[in-house]
Amino acid sequence: MPRIVDHEKRRKDIAKVVSSLVLKGGAEAVTVRAVAEACGYSTTIVCYYFRSKHEMLAYTQRIAWERNLSRIENADKAGKDLLTCLELAVPNTPKRWQDWNCWMAFWGQAATTKGIEEDWRAANVASNLLFADLVRRAQARAEFDPDEDPVSAATGIQIMLNGIATLVAQARSDWPPNRQREALREQLVRLGYRPVA
Amino acid sequence: MPRIVDHEKRRKDIAKVVSSLVLKGGAEAVTVRAVAEACGYSTTIVCYYFRSKHEMLAYTQRIAWERNLSRIENADKAGKDLLTCLELAVPNTPKRWQDWNCWMAFWGQAATTKGIEEDWRAANVASNLLFADLVRRAQARAEFDPDEDPVSAATGIQIMLNGIATLVAQARSDWPPNRQREALREQLVRLGYRPVA
Repeated sequence: MPRIVDHEKRRKDIAKVVSSLVLKGGAEAVTVRAVAEACGYSTTIVCYYFRSKHEMLAYTQRIAWERNLSRIENADKAGKDLLTCLELAVPNTPKRWQDWNCWMAFWGQAATTKGIEEDWRAANVASNLLFADLVRRAQARAEFDPDEDPVSAATGIQIMLNGIATLVAQARSDWPPNRQREALREQLVRLGYRPVA
Repeated sequence: MPRIVDHEKRRKDIAKVVSSLVLKGGAEAVTVRAVAEACGYSTTIVCYYFRSKHEMLAYTQRIAWERNLSRIENADKAGKDLLTCLELAVPNTPKRWQDWNCWMAFWGQAATTKGIEEDWRAANVASNLLFADLVRRAQARAEFDPDEDPVSAATGIQIMLNGIATLVAQARSDWPPNRQREALREQLVRLGYRPVA
């Protein structure tokens, strides 16, 4: 199915451009015209792939979190411990910072934007499901307090990750990767994580 | 000094309009023209009070957090316990939701916006100072683990509050005030809070 493959590839290429426009100028910098110019496409072609600015932003942030959750899931399947898996979720590399920047711009959109509440919810539900799963496996490995409810612990992990990322976003030079790791470890221990000695 | 009082009052009136525009349409809805129309002023008058859209947004979110921190400080001085004080900081009323909405729109602005990093930092530093102070007083009342460092605990409180607020923002109907209070209490206990029996 070359045409379908090509269609998704084009959408991903456009999403890369959207993400870098957000990094440079926030969500406001994302217009069909600016995206078309940066891609070297006509606005008609861009509109063939995305019907609106919201659709471009929603797709861009969605593939970023899907990719991020897959990376975490794969690390878990490869036998990494919980802290190492969750380190893949904080803005401690330029690429991850760009993803977080995109999510924060997306969170900052008006709740009145058509379809946005469903997009927000989808990301939250997917994160919660994955984190609850990671907690269950960590419990099975005696790496997490067995008395903690995995779903509540997953919500605690979401609060912690989002909270750390908002602080990093607002003072990046104060939060080098090792401080992010330390904050992550400290809060994770409070949630029930038991580092393997 | 009636003229100075009047100047600040006008700026606050404009900030109210900015905040409600952000609520309805995000930061993108804030333009000098839209603000002037909603205030019933000319754009020249609006530009006399604020030199740019960024200045309007920065002032609006700043007076919101200054007011919020004062409210928390006053509750603390009035002898309220730590949990009750921090309940004033989560988006559990329409007014507080509007303030959080404004902060999230402000966090979602590009880091390249002139002056924004200083504004972000100012809010973070002020919050950390106040929360560390609240922790010290809670420790003096035997309401918080005396072995916890107040400054680290304050950072933990910031992570928790921002994290809860981001989850609420993305699924408001899932987070009624009592669920916010419960999450706040649970995370605060993990940080070292000891509820008075």
